[in-house]
Amino acid sequence: MTAPAASWLDSDVPADNGFGLENLPYGVFSTQRDGRPRTGVAIGDRVLDLAGLTDDPVHATGSLNAFLALGPRRWQALRADLVGWLTEERHRALVEPHLVPVEEARLHLPVAIADYVDFYSSRHHAENLGHLFRPGGAPLTPNWLHLPLGYHGRSGTVVVSGTPVARPHGQRRGAADGPPTFGPSLQLDIEAEIGFVVGTPSPLGRPVALEELDQHVFGVCLVNDWSARDLQSWEYVPLGPFLGKSFLTSVSPWVVPLTALQAARIPPPPREVALLPYLDDAATAPWGLDIQMEVRINGHVVSRPPFGLMYWTPAQQLAHLTVNGASLRTGDLFASGTVSGPEQHQRGSLIELTWGGREPLELPDGSVRTFLQDGDRVSITATATGVHGGTVSLGAVTGRVQPPRPMP
Amino acid sequence: MTAPAASWLDSDVPADNGFGLENLPYGVFSTQRDGRPRTGVAIGDRVLDLAGLTDDPVHATGSLNAFLALGPRRWQALRADLVGWLTEERHRALVEPHLVPVEEARLHLPVAIADYVDFYSSRHHAENLGHLFRPGGAPLTPNWLHLPLGYHGRSGTVVVSGTPVARPHGQRRGAADGPPTFGPSLQLDIEAEIGFVVGTPSPLGRPVALEELDQHVFGVCLVNDWSARDLQSWEYVPLGPFLGKSFLTSVSPWVVPLTALQAARIPPPPREVALLPYLDDAATAPWGLDIQMEVRINGHVVSRPPFGLMYWTPAQQLAHLTVNGASLRTGDLFASGTVSGPEQHQRGSLIELTWGGREPLELPDGSVRTFLQDGDRVSITATATGVHGGTVSLGAVTGRVQPPRPMP
Repeated sequence: MTAPAASWLDSDVPADNGFGLENLPYGVFSTQRDGRPRTGVAIGDRVLDLAGLTDDPVHATGSLNAFLALGPRRWQALRADLVGWLTEERHRALVEPHLVPVEEARLHLPVAIADYVDFYSSRHHAENLGHLFRPGGAPLTPNWLHLPLGYHGRSGTVVVSGTPVARPHGQRRGAADGPPTFGPSLQLDIEAEIGFVVGTPSPLGRPVALEELDQHVFGVCLVNDWSARDLQSWEYVPLGPFLGKSFLTSVSPWVVPLTALQAARIPPPPREVALLPYLDDAATAPWGLDIQMEVRINGHVVSRPPFGLMYWTPAQQLAHLTVNGASLRTGDLFASGTVSGPEQHQRGSLIELTWGGREPLELPDGSVRTFLQDGDRVSITATATGVHGGTVSLGAVTGRVQPPRPMP
Repeated sequence: MTAPAASWLDSDVPADNGFGLENLPYGVFSTQRDGRPRTGVAIGDRVLDLAGLTDDPVHATGSLNAFLALGPRRWQALRADLVGWLTEERHRALVEPHLVPVEEARLHLPVAIADYVDFYSSRHHAENLGHLFRPGGAPLTPNWLHLPLGYHGRSGTVVVSGTPVARPHGQRRGAADGPPTFGPSLQLDIEAEIGFVVGTPSPLGRPVALEELDQHVFGVCLVNDWSARDLQSWEYVPLGPFLGKSFLTSVSPWVVPLTALQAARIPPPPREVALLPYLDDAATAPWGLDIQMEVRINGHVVSRPPFGLMYWTPAQQLAHLTVNGASLRTGDLFASGTVSGPEQHQRGSLIELTWGGREPLELPDGSVRTFLQDGDRVSITATATGVHGGTVSLGAVTGRVQPPRPMP
């Protein structure tokens, strides 16, 4: 890479806010003046209106899907154009009228989600949940070290950051083998995750190899996979999580191109067992990603999950997802699963942070939490180092817990 | 209902082929002469081209979704129009040019699937699978009698009947706690199911009550949820079925309106435990459906699953699916799960018919099956009694097993 170019915008960009030229993430926005949702690129404290600047209908559809479907060559070409437009003084007069202050932009769900798959790729998280959900048993199931476990979630309830989080109703296990009880979840939780957005589709019957991740995945976002643990623990045997998860999944509004994370690539942890060839990444360029995450409740940091310690990489997740011949569609979203590190303060969910609610968390404001209370505001943020050494921000995924809606 | 009207088409309709005026199912078709996929209605041995006849762009989109989104009033209005057009001689000259012989119609996936959910609503199937997957344990998990268990499947690999079924590759449990092996599935199976197609969406946070099924669900189709049992049994703990199912799910090309099945409504089996209010259907009009299914392998009937014995009804499935506030989208598909009755010859999957492969099935041609062999052709058909006492056919969902594709 060449040295970082300076933008003619520099004077307007707060120093190193994570949205400099090394990032250039894509989102969908509208303004009060122009209510049409359209594609924008975040730069500093502005949003560049691509629909207005380029007049390309691909950027005026209200989702990124049409652009993502164009594939890696076109992604890279537009990225090069963006750098040119934002650094060369001669473009300034043309570009400047299409820069919108970010506080005037209403951000929408960036991608029309096709299929949503949630993986379970943190060994620390899987072991913690194993201890809590199956006490006395082996914390890891026998398959865990051999494949990235995953399941399909509900794509219709994937929403953009900021959408209110209504506490869901559902069945909970009753006392002493009695019948279940019903009501608002008493164990509403978060799951701090990183999501991967598919741009290039693949046909039925053609598995995607480890080396092909960046031919298919356009970029990453933050995911909060809200979870009702009481609903989940009653329902999940034998078909897996369902209503305990399907009420809402929030994603951050900016999709950060994989290209912006090239400097964050690191080897994943050593593998404990030999992997089958389609998952064996020992001889491939690594797809661990050194991303630092932070989880806040009402502004207080409660966890700093280290994404770089994830056992299974997104390349392995994609290879596994397609090894049976399953096809990919533009807009497919696959998420990492909860990111938890080995330390207590690195756990990406409250059920882990409070060990099933038995060790309440004391917040700096003096209040304590086991699970989420009505009114709690959760924010997950993340950053990585960019190719020129600056900060690349993944932005934030936020949500505020609402009281349960009345049953009709 | 009034007496069945006679169609001016009668002379062309094979006697009681299940696609008379009592049925009128919707599909998407194209012809060699006009390759554009468009909406059609099956009548006798013809397809009525709705795009050509009505010039309504809703019928020219290549999926039923735009029509389904119009809601029950418009569904009923078009059905009344169809009966008029097909019975009143004065419409004949206008309608007849838009009738296409069914053998000239190429049938496409009728619905762009939004979310696909698969339930597990046959008690006999759940008990059989419990015996086979968890030998020695209780056949039903403690939650089974309290809620219709389900999980999300992959909507991107839902395909129309006739699509070839490539034998999927994947991981299988190794011998004696050793590492897993990899290869084409050795236990490729079928699951004979009925699917329900959502027309009217629902907003986040508004559960759909038992009484509202026909306000949201447009109609039904047949589903073959192809399953690789060896992949499934290795992967499914603790997150449920994933690659063992996600390679392909086939649906029949004709969506039969719920309206056409009103005479098939019967009470479901007696409930063994008291149900929570949102699932308690004792005082509501019943949504058991007396549909007779047949499963054929290479033309030989191997099973006759009785849908009328399903423990959980589609109304309960929909109420459960949404009780946590999850929204519905036009094009959502939820399937019943494998339909199995109490008798051996009523089981809707090979793993049940052959008791895990231990009791091979002898076909009338002298060959034996445990699981599917390359080249096998599977066909699932179903019929019910129409409102005038005739037969309503759900058509067929078929698929032929191909040899595994080479690994890339």
